[in-house]
Amino acid sequence: MATAQDIHLADSLITAIVPTGTKPPEPPQTAGTTPVAPVEAIDGTGLLAVPGLINSHTHSPMVMMRGAAEDLSIDDWFNQRIWPMEVNLTPERVRVGARLACAEMLLAGVTTFVDHYFHADQIAQAAIESGIRADLAPTYFSSVGPEGIDAAIATTRDLATLHPRITASLGPHATYTVSDDDLRRTADVARAEGLRIHLHAAETEAQTQASVDKHGATPIEILDRTGVLDAGALIAHGCGIRATDLPILQRYADRTAVATCPKVYLKLAMGNGTPIKQLQEAGIPIGIGTDGAAVHNTLDVWESLRLLALTQKHQQNNAESMPLSETLRLATRASAAAAGQPHSLGALEPGRQADITLLDLSAPHNQPLHDPRAALVYSVRASDVHTVLVAGEVVVRNRQLTKLNLPEVLAEASALAHTLVDLSNGGTIQHYAP
Amino acid sequence: MATAQDIHLADSLITAIVPTGTKPPEPPQTAGTTPVAPVEAIDGTGLLAVPGLINSHTHSPMVMMRGAAEDLSIDDWFNQRIWPMEVNLTPERVRVGARLACAEMLLAGVTTFVDHYFHADQIAQAAIESGIRADLAPTYFSSVGPEGIDAAIATTRDLATLHPRITASLGPHATYTVSDDDLRRTADVARAEGLRIHLHAAETEAQTQASVDKHGATPIEILDRTGVLDAGALIAHGCGIRATDLPILQRYADRTAVATCPKVYLKLAMGNGTPIKQLQEAGIPIGIGTDGAAVHNTLDVWESLRLLALTQKHQQNNAESMPLSETLRLATRASAAAAGQPHSLGALEPGRQADITLLDLSAPHNQPLHDPRAALVYSVRASDVHTVLVAGEVVVRNRQLTKLNLPEVLAEASALAHTLVDLSNGGTIQHYAP
Repeated sequence: MATAQDIHLADSLITAIVPTGTKPPEPPQTAGTTPVAPVEAIDGTGLLAVPGLINSHTHSPMVMMRGAAEDLSIDDWFNQRIWPMEVNLTPERVRVGARLACAEMLLAGVTTFVDHYFHADQIAQAAIESGIRADLAPTYFSSVGPEGIDAAIATTRDLATLHPRITASLGPHATYTVSDDDLRRTADVARAEGLRIHLHAAETEAQTQASVDKHGATPIEILDRTGVLDAGALIAHGCGIRATDLPILQRYADRTAVATCPKVYLKLAMGNGTPIKQLQEAGIPIGIGTDGAAVHNTLDVWESLRLLALTQKHQQNNAESMPLSETLRLATRASAAAAGQPHSLGALEPGRQADITLLDLSAPHNQPLHDPRAALVYSVRASDVHTVLVAGEVVVRNRQLTKLNLPEVLAEASALAHTLVDLSNGGTIQHYAP
Repeated sequence: MATAQDIHLADSLITAIVPTGTKPPEPPQTAGTTPVAPVEAIDGTGLLAVPGLINSHTHSPMVMMRGAAEDLSIDDWFNQRIWPMEVNLTPERVRVGARLACAEMLLAGVTTFVDHYFHADQIAQAAIESGIRADLAPTYFSSVGPEGIDAAIATTRDLATLHPRITASLGPHATYTVSDDDLRRTADVARAEGLRIHLHAAETEAQTQASVDKHGATPIEILDRTGVLDAGALIAHGCGIRATDLPILQRYADRTAVATCPKVYLKLAMGNGTPIKQLQEAGIPIGIGTDGAAVHNTLDVWESLRLLALTQKHQQNNAESMPLSETLRLATRASAAAAGQPHSLGALEPGRQADITLLDLSAPHNQPLHDPRAALVYSVRASDVHTVLVAGEVVVRNRQLTKLNLPEVLAEASALAHTLVDLSNGGTIQHYAP
């Protein structure tokens, strides 16, 4: 077994990792300051420290629709359930859903989520309150008109400076719901203000074919010609990315990433999912995510990373592909890049944010522990998460949330749940016809 | 929400299920007996009662090799790791592994496991001690010779009458490791003594093709011509079952079942897995299992049933296929049939065994609870299992084992773990060359 290590923190950062019982290197002394005594020591004896997980693509408040849209084609999922249900969104319902989502993620060792949804200011409040880190993209369709888009962009600007744990992205919904003109304008704002763009594109091969038929261009070609890729984008799903799209994406590999949510591709029968191997060969960072719980049913990133490894072995027809180390690299460093924070998240190293998940691997389903990496990919459960720190702050201690009042969060969600799935009001926020 | 129900038990059986607060029907009075006062009431308020899960195919002691054979082709998995490791098996090591496996399964709500392994008498002791129900098949290859086979068959006979919770099957390993003559003899014993046969067959299409090339018959045709199907068989995996095999299997649908372990087929890149839809159309019961933890890494049947639903939607390219209700039917009634106990397990009904798992669905990842069936298939975790009864006896209470001493089980397993994976002794118990 590896030697036990002490992780030293100061403020929100990891400052040193040294064998237990040894002294860390002296921190650089600033003139006029006196060294501060440690405020807390967390006993992690017997626990495994890993970088806090990153949910690279989700719609957190959709936990309110968990289990309410099952066994449906992607068309019916959108048109018969989700978009008609989203007529019911209010700021309060979004906040309640986001609080529940933050509770679920923190208890499962997720320390950062990359979100795309409506009323993102409410999601920010839930994230700040719970102690989690978030990148938030306020969602918009072209159908909301210029004023709606202006409002969404203004929310991104507000969120970008709101709190140290909150970053913000521009959130056009998708290439099939936002016009080229609006994408171009989004890209201009992004470049001018140093913002990133998070959107859905090429979700299925059928979408890609429809785009070619209607616009003479693949979704990736549209992102290229509108300047979205040049500005820097996180592309959700990309299951319909074609071989001809890869050289385009490769030109922007330093500022573009793809988020993959493998459980969703199986559940919605979306074919082979994100072309992981081809994107990796093109040097595109790939983050692992859950998508919303209205389709994924959980926000459990352990489940996602396991399914990534399993589905890659299946698709490549090679049990040696996507080995443990590569799976864990995608779940950590690559997901940090997908979250737009490649240098501050995704690893336990001095100088990075102290986003740390401590796992208790002592339960029978992880024992005996021949290989902790195998446990992380193939046997660990979210319930093995014991303690979680975000930016150096303890947000889960001994499997309990420290900042959110869980019974209150659950009661609020339960009380409002029926309002979200009510289809009696009629109407829809959008129609899926890519 | 459904009305709360009381489940009444007597001895090992469910006697009545009635709305909470109502009186159950009077049990038939036997002359000379007096009604017995209930010995215990279990408060299940707020918990969901489901039939105890059935692990339809596993090799329980292989938990001792968990995580020790990762990212390997099926050939290397057998020839470089597992069969060389199994040189190290001893009765004690098997017992220790089986105890750990029983602990893992009970805590995850599994009340029956259908096992295939060496030193099955040791596994029986672990099962009896832990309170779980098991069907045990002592494994043999033709390479052990007539005396070895006699010994395995004798163990089956002994186990068949050992304990009310233990049933036993004959355990030839596979069509590629047991000769036609030995299969024929096994089938004769099975028919003469009313025993069932549990074996591996047609695990991959490559095995099927190899069988045709070497023997002029598919593995299923071999099972037919040797009388194994006529005697009644549980076939593990069957991923290489061909369309021409289906009419053969259909003739024995009343006494033949297939166990499917979808996580394994993804992980070992075994193609499309068990042909579920075709077998269902042929009326063959399909049980859900984990296989051994040396490949599945857990004995978590929730994981298996979720992957069954997800992979079926993927393969059939239809998000509406394998809906919630059908997935749950396979995990309950069909798995009971696969375990050879279609009338006594797999449902909460008067007259059936009181094998009951009580789930606490109050944690954030299951909330709000729009549809409990969706929770069971897509969001529940083994850690949501609160209380478990087998044959009317409480074996897990408030997430704690009542009969096994868990710290002792874990310490024993940890102490012996290195002995199982030691490859320095050389040799192997078998060579994989189907």
